[in-house]
Amino acid sequence: MIRTGIVGISGYSGLTVLKLLFKHKDVRLTYVSANTTTGLLSDIWPQFTGRTMLVCKKFNPDQAAKQCDMIFLAVPHTVSMRITPKLLKRGLRVIDLSGDYRLSSTAVFKKWYGKTHTDGRRLGRVVYGMPELYRTKIAKAELIANPGCYPTAAILGLAPLMGLNHKAVSSIIIDAKSGVSGAGKKLSGPLMFAEANENLTAYKLFQHQHTPEIEQYLSAVAGSKISVSFTPHLVPMNVGIFATIYVQFKPKANPGNLQSMYSRFYKTEPFVRVLKSGSIPEIKNVVNTNFCDIGIAYDKTKHMAIITVAIDNLMKGAAGQAVQNMNIMCGFDETEGLW
Amino acid sequence: MIRTGIVGISGYSGLTVLKLLFKHKDVRLTYVSANTTTGLLSDIWPQFTGRTMLVCKKFNPDQAAKQCDMIFLAVPHTVSMRITPKLLKRGLRVIDLSGDYRLSSTAVFKKWYGKTHTDGRRLGRVVYGMPELYRTKIAKAELIANPGCYPTAAILGLAPLMGLNHKAVSSIIIDAKSGVSGAGKKLSGPLMFAEANENLTAYKLFQHQHTPEIEQYLSAVAGSKISVSFTPHLVPMNVGIFATIYVQFKPKANPGNLQSMYSRFYKTEPFVRVLKSGSIPEIKNVVNTNFCDIGIAYDKTKHMAIITVAIDNLMKGAAGQAVQNMNIMCGFDETEGLW
Amino acid sequence: MIRTGIVGISGYSGLTVLKLLFKHKDVRLTYVSANTTTGLLSDIWPQFTGRTMLVCKKFNPDQAAKQCDMIFLAVPHTVSMRITPKLLKRGLRVIDLSGDYRLSSTAVFKKWYGKTHTDGRRLGRVVYGMPELYRTKIAKAELIANPGCYPTAAILGLAPLMGLNHKAVSSIIIDAKSGVSGAGKKLSGPLMFAEANENLTAYKLFQHQHTPEIEQYLSAVAGSKISVSFTPHLVPMNVGIFATIYVQFKPKANPGNLQSMYSRFYKTEPFVRVLKSGSIPEIKNVVNTNFCDIGIAYDKTKHMAIITVAIDNLMKGAAGQAVQNMNIMCGFDETEGLW
Amino acid sequence: MIRTGIVGISGYSGLTVLKLLFKHKDVRLTYVSANTTTGLLSDIWPQFTGRTMLVCKKFNPDQAAKQCDMIFLAVPHTVSMRITPKLLKRGLRVIDLSGDYRLSSTAVFKKWYGKTHTDGRRLGRVVYGMPELYRTKIAKAELIANPGCYPTAAILGLAPLMGLNHKAVSSIIIDAKSGVSGAGKKLSGPLMFAEANENLTAYKLFQHQHTPEIEQYLSAVAGSKISVSFTPHLVPMNVGIFATIYVQFKPKANPGNLQSMYSRFYKTEPFVRVLKSGSIPEIKNVVNTNFCDIGIAYDKTKHMAIITVAIDNLMKGAAGQAVQNMNIMCGFDETEGLW
Repeated sequence: MIRTGIVGISGYSGLTVLKLLFKHKDVRLTYVSANTTTGLLSDIWPQFTGRTMLVCKKFNPDQAAKQCDMIFLAVPHTVSMRITPKLLKRGLRVIDLSGDYRLSSTAVFKKWYGKTHTDGRRLGRVVYGMPELYRTKIAKAELIANPGCYPTAAILGLAPLMGLNHKAVSSIIIDAKSGVSGAGKKLSGPLMFAEANENLTAYKLFQHQHTPEIEQYLSAVAGSKISVSFTPHLVPMNVGIFATIYVQFKPKANPGNLQSMYSRFYKTEPFVRVLKSGSIPEIKNVVNTNFCDIGIAYDKTKHMAIITVAIDNLMKGAAGQAVQNMNIMCGFDETEGLW
Repeated sequence: MIRTGIVGISGYSGLTVLKLLFKHKDVRLTYVSANTTTGLLSDIWPQFTGRTMLVCKKFNPDQAAKQCDMIFLAVPHTVSMRITPKLLKRGLRVIDLSGDYRLSSTAVFKKWYGKTHTDGRRLGRVVYGMPELYRTKIAKAELIANPGCYPTAAILGLAPLMGLNHKAVSSIIIDAKSGVSGAGKKLSGPLMFAEANENLTAYKLFQHQHTPEIEQYLSAVAGSKISVSFTPHLVPMNVGIFATIYVQFKPKANPGNLQSMYSRFYKTEPFVRVLKSGSIPEIKNVVNTNFCDIGIAYDKTKHMAIITVAIDNLMKGAAGQAVQNMNIMCGFDETEGLW
Repeated sequence: MIRTGIVGISGYSGLTVLKLLFKHKDVRLTYVSANTTTGLLSDIWPQFTGRTMLVCKKFNPDQAAKQCDMIFLAVPHTVSMRITPKLLKRGLRVIDLSGDYRLSSTAVFKKWYGKTHTDGRRLGRVVYGMPELYRTKIAKAELIANPGCYPTAAILGLAPLMGLNHKAVSSIIIDAKSGVSGAGKKLSGPLMFAEANENLTAYKLFQHQHTPEIEQYLSAVAGSKISVSFTPHLVPMNVGIFATIYVQFKPKANPGNLQSMYSRFYKTEPFVRVLKSGSIPEIKNVVNTNFCDIGIAYDKTKHMAIITVAIDNLMKGAAGQAVQNMNIMCGFDETEGLW
Repeated sequence: MIRTGIVGISGYSGLTVLKLLFKHKDVRLTYVSANTTTGLLSDIWPQFTGRTMLVCKKFNPDQAAKQCDMIFLAVPHTVSMRITPKLLKRGLRVIDLSGDYRLSSTAVFKKWYGKTHTDGRRLGRVVYGMPELYRTKIAKAELIANPGCYPTAAILGLAPLMGLNHKAVSSIIIDAKSGVSGAGKKLSGPLMFAEANENLTAYKLFQHQHTPEIEQYLSAVAGSKISVSFTPHLVPMNVGIFATIYVQFKPKANPGNLQSMYSRFYKTEPFVRVLKSGSIPEIKNVVNTNFCDIGIAYDKTKHMAIITVAIDNLMKGAAGQAVQNMNIMCGFDETEGLW
């Protein structure tokens, strides 16, 4: 039984970690904190009325260290880099759901996040919390950079091909559609119900900060620099990411049997499901689960594959994956609390 | 051809007046203003890109008076009472979509709106802009208090009964369900997409400021003090109000033939449709129209009627009714621009 | 470890029972069947891909009896009355989620369901599966009539008052709003997305078959004949029921302290939460849970209470309550598999 | 004043043509028919209650010819090819909203629609009703093949580039997202509210019948064979198509100034709006309008353009464009009835 804490309880990722830890048989949730919101957890999230007497406090690293063995950081970007060093120094293991430690260089961070990194010396040495790629390293890590929601879909959708046959590929386009919770729980005009409902649009064309994250880890898998085009869209639903990935193969290249390549690659993975040939994932089949569903279609004439991927952005795209990482770090059953 | 203006262009009511005036063959829209938002109308509402070069300015009563014959006020409550006297003094006719001039006493206003009325001497003498009840007075009015969205549904649903047989009634309960645009275009946690979608709740139990408005005008129709219970609900859809009105009759009273009573009462009304017996209104049949659909059901055993009413809250519940009032005030065809 | 089965796997109630039984630590799901749909469960509900090899078969009572100790019937009305006797005869315990065994008389069944009951001799002797009222009887029952979704909300919202002070009440009106899954998984024009989305309407005014169910059990609680007016509405959301209950008190009657009356009544109940004074339930706080949230408001002037109730129609309103009943019948922790 | 008729009144395209013709000052709607649905129009579509006494009849070509000068066919694919010859023979002008006459060869039709064309001799000689490309021919046509919803978005989004600089382009990928009304008004499991809401998926990968339509007309514009990859998605909203078009340029090619190329190309078009640089279209800005909004983004590093396009699938994607075609054919103001 380990003692866990969450910093950043008032956002959707924090809320989802909370729900998962409540159900988890091997951990106790002993500490919750937030930046501005404080008070009874059941006042912050009335759905927990009658289920917990936990009180949310202003973050204090000493208190966190005294009450927990492991901390989940569900805080906004640039907050984590200030908190994390304090927690690590006090001997806590940290799973950071923000984007602060995912990129390998301060320069790249500066370019895409627009801020200077204050803990840059750690960049490039933090374990990326994608179990399908880094399970062994995760088990021993003190600090995990939990993947972004879009990168989770994109990387899982491309890893087998990048790892096994990236030289056959000439271009990759990732068109991703996200439910509104992906934008976080913040007051914003375009996210108001009467604006976002019955609407759909793209945003940050060529400029989304998840682009370098996707490229960095696909390059690591391929062992060669991989470049992608990534475009996010906002869709009127609460949760879910659907990624449509267009892979153009080089004229003479042999794509191989993608269906069996993917099936083999993920054969032993508990949370990746390669659908049978002809099937296409749907958001509703992964909502409230930690699954990542992948469908594969290939057209000979166009010499192109369309890889379709569906995840729940708050589960496999954030909190679910974070708990999966914790399970690995602590030697628990990897699926505990996630089915 | 009259010249019209709108104050409060950045909210949903103002937007809807705008759309209607653009299509209206007898008026020109010559002035638009708002409180904080200024600039090209097509920057404020991109849907008008390429359709207008109108510029939204900070409100100025002299400018308004010079450029318009009639002004629509689509401003928040308590703003109108400060602007209206200035406009009337300058000879403009005013249709006020806010709640400032609907109630007949400053004390009642203070109680329900929580603010002191600064133009209280006008209260009780302003024409209520519900054509089905006050068409003749509207034609000559300088200032119209345009009805609230909930009161429009409630009053139209009860006026025939109150006018013709109110003594048979022992109690009235109005359970109203509204789309999210009814709450206005303001930043607010509960109105965020990810909070309001897949959710439903009631609010302001026994305390909604539309209650005295409903009671005041039903009492006027009945010629006797009428009391109602009114409860609003927030529903995950963009527009529409659906009111379910429970009318309990007194034990020995004869309710009369409600179906024919209602049909006769609204026989010549262009925008009220009494559905045939057995039919129930639906929001989708009135969306983007100025119609108010009414269905009537009566149960002998319970000696109770259920009157169901559907309107588009931004049309018959606000801007559509305002334009209908303008048509009457100016001697235009009452339905011009509304079909 | 008991062996359980589900008949009627292709509807939403059956699906939800399925999900709950998969997570339940004290049972094994050994038998699933349906009327027309057969084949791999993961082909019927792709969300279970990779999680189960269960095969759905055409219903056969002998097979069911051989493979199970307890059966959940998630079949349409009038199907259950044909199956249940066969299962009981073979020694199975049955939890029937349909409406077939809830009413106490064949005449009332005929009137509201429009069909003759073929197992009428059992009516009136079946235990109604509402733990808050009948926990002791449920523990020993062979057959449970699992409550309807609307009656669950209505009865839980009124039981304390009916049990403790029904003589003070002069009239009860229940205005209920339901998500679309409440209508079941059937092809129907009004339930198509483009028809039901951005729409809202009432249906079956004075005629819904849940009315006598509500009246029968409230009367049982009160020990006196109770009559209610019940009106259902269809709302564009997937799950959830929100009931707004208007209770008018008799002129001189003392309603008592409703807040403390309700809190005491449900004090030890694991799944009923009486919200603190001033709070109103919201669908989002009960979705995917077995909770029933209740809010209480009282207005002195109107001498009226508004009881607001929120449940997940597929959980506390169907499958969750069914599993709660199973837990009681089998002596498991009553909340097992439900948190 | 011309007399118009609609065949296929019970679907969404037929409904939208209906609404537009009611508002049109230069036409009278004199004939409505459908295949199976008959009776008062206001019984079929209750939103027209009180507005029309039109009766929908079973289709009869002689009757149609006697009562109309022009007919809109809003019938399913393969129905139009049987009706159209009869109407043309009787001297009627026909605007066909189905896919029957859009493709230029019977072989291609057979391949993508899976049926043999029974009026194949007309294929390749029918005018494609996209005013921006074929205005002069439309004016004189007897039969118009009204474009499909997806092709309207795709072709308008690519026509300037294909017409002026197609040689610079190496590949085109069209990722399109559609509201549910795009699938038509038919009973279908995946289109039920509780299945389609909070869900998103792709369909017909590499196999959608709009692909050859897009390629045929882009090739015509380019004067050279153009190939595209086209993928449709189903999104939980009622109307709207959003197309994200990825254009990869050849390594050494000069894309030119796309922003000004597009602005000039559509300079005089009443219904195409090229947004200013940096802006991205949104569905909500085109809903209920005949506008096609286009946004352009170009990334130097990737040498790629992303063209984003938004239309209302029932307006510019079907009925609105059909009425625009009628306006051109009859010499009316091209925008009449469409603003």
